[in-house]
Amino acid sequence: MSLDDKSVKPHEQLANALAQDLEATDALIAQRMASENAPRIPEVTAHLVGAGGKRLRPMLTIAAARICGYEGTLHHNLAAAVEFIHTATLLHDDVVDESKQRRGRPTANLLWDNKSSVLVGDYLFARSFQLMTDTQNLRVLSILSNASAVITEGEVLQLSAAEDLGTTEDTYYKVVRGKTAALFSASAEAGAVLAGASEDQITALHNYGESLGIAFQVVDDLLDYLSDAETMGKNVGDDFRERKLTLPVIKTIAKAEGDERAFWIRVIDKGDQREGDLEHALGLMQAHGTLEETRQAAIDWADRGRAQLKSLPESDLRDMLDALADYVVARLR
Amino acid sequence: MSLDDKSVKPHEQLANALAQDLEATDALIAQRMASENAPRIPEVTAHLVGAGGKRLRPMLTIAAARICGYEGTLHHNLAAAVEFIHTATLLHDDVVDESKQRRGRPTANLLWDNKSSVLVGDYLFARSFQLMTDTQNLRVLSILSNASAVITEGEVLQLSAAEDLGTTEDTYYKVVRGKTAALFSASAEAGAVLAGASEDQITALHNYGESLGIAFQVVDDLLDYLSDAETMGKNVGDDFRERKLTLPVIKTIAKAEGDERAFWIRVIDKGDQREGDLEHALGLMQAHGTLEETRQAAIDWADRGRAQLKSLPESDLRDMLDALADYVVARLR
Repeated sequence: MSLDDKSVKPHEQLANALAQDLEATDALIAQRMASENAPRIPEVTAHLVGAGGKRLRPMLTIAAARICGYEGTLHHNLAAAVEFIHTATLLHDDVVDESKQRRGRPTANLLWDNKSSVLVGDYLFARSFQLMTDTQNLRVLSILSNASAVITEGEVLQLSAAEDLGTTEDTYYKVVRGKTAALFSASAEAGAVLAGASEDQITALHNYGESLGIAFQVVDDLLDYLSDAETMGKNVGDDFRERKLTLPVIKTIAKAEGDERAFWIRVIDKGDQREGDLEHALGLMQAHGTLEETRQAAIDWADRGRAQLKSLPESDLRDMLDALADYVVARLR
Repeated sequence: MSLDDKSVKPHEQLANALAQDLEATDALIAQRMASENAPRIPEVTAHLVGAGGKRLRPMLTIAAARICGYEGTLHHNLAAAVEFIHTATLLHDDVVDESKQRRGRPTANLLWDNKSSVLVGDYLFARSFQLMTDTQNLRVLSILSNASAVITEGEVLQLSAAEDLGTTEDTYYKVVRGKTAALFSASAEAGAVLAGASEDQITALHNYGESLGIAFQVVDDLLDYLSDAETMGKNVGDDFRERKLTLPVIKTIAKAEGDERAFWIRVIDKGDQREGDLEHALGLMQAHGTLEETRQAAIDWADRGRAQLKSLPESDLRDMLDALADYVVARLR
């Protein structure tokens, strides 16, 4: 395989390298999302799983296990478990955010109803714990149950920070570490633990996953303020309209005085948004250089993640994880 | 202590006998529902936990462990875990059912919002798995993660069975085994497993919990059709208005022909309910003796549960579980 072939993206290279493992994981996902008693469960799950996310989290688990020399098959259970946790989180997020679209398709809460999304999410959480219990590895169970609690804390914290002009970068990173990075780090760490890796390797993979997750979320939040052309069709300004305090806004508000501060109070705190406000907000971000600062923050996180990989044994898979961290921020370079 | 003192109800006797264990469990619940990062979590949880349910499930876990000779303290973790699963289920149920009252107080989804109820429920699920993992007992983890999946299956099945005139007693019992009995049986079983009980004792306590749970739910569904005086203020006819297919209705529809069938099609299938319909439905139940049949079904389940206890060593706690099963259906005798 060639890492220089720019036509194949890093996550696709990883998927190719782990093709057999991913196939076994998909088979397990299909088997465990079934419910003899309640046929609506696999319907709802298939809608989301079939929409094809990038499977980043299960790939992290599988790659971490393989890099650390694992030769069994229980990493498929773990990979399926982290994908279930992720899918459950998406189902519940869409209820919480009252979303109408996910991965370019109508959300489950729209196609069925909130009830189905809540309950099917619960089912997938329960199934994920069954899958983990199958590994008979208590440390893995501890890592992933802790991560599940931290994910939810991050989301609740995000709820209470929404529309709050006083939100700091510190709070932002707490939210991001919870809602996004906790599952990335746990996915990588659990794979290493299952493989019986050394504590140094386990820590390195945990930290890599965490930094990758933070970079991933910062990029996502930045793209919400970049032009449509760059984001390939994603709507610009969704977070602005929903009055979410993400990094570009937090950095810009920190530099606002007088009229600028009054503007932010009106559009975020009071939610009184008028035509041209988004464009004005973007102008302020340009003027203060905060889009550029956010871009640099994302790149720094990705670099921090890549640095962690140096303590792992050299391998093609390790190089692919390196390329993956690069790719997450590549659109910003 | 006296089992003959009719002024003390069986669940109160049990609570008195297990007072120290329950106190330790409550302390653990208070400690584990806390969240440094998201203060809204303990607020929402305390609203529900503070409203004071009967703590039936944690008492089952503790009693089962004690009856089987357990002398450690990890049964408090299990008891807190089953109470968290139960509380999470209530939070999500109230979102699913769009409920406004629970235990005589406004529901969390009404006081805060659906978002908080969904996320805090998720948090408690995650916390429950942390508590179970602390026991380092993989069989206990397997029992409770299975139960969590079965609970949700029961609830999803209930969703798709709602408003469906073709719902059979078989489907009804599938729903009840899931949404109610699965956690009762798992609570008792897990306590026995933790105590290292024999397979016979484990099975007996599992079966006792299951029968108790079914009796409990059948009584609940029957009380929804009995007069206000008997149910001490509970609204009569909620299930009728929500077009839920519970045992009294299923039994009555099974005996309906001609005009009666047309009535049920109109009020349940089409949801066209008018003044006097509930009274007419009650009249049909009286005429067909289906309230009486439902009453007898509940008593039979309670008796089945009590029969299981015979294989356990004699003890005051065992007698209290016997009295508890009796008490669940006592209002119907």
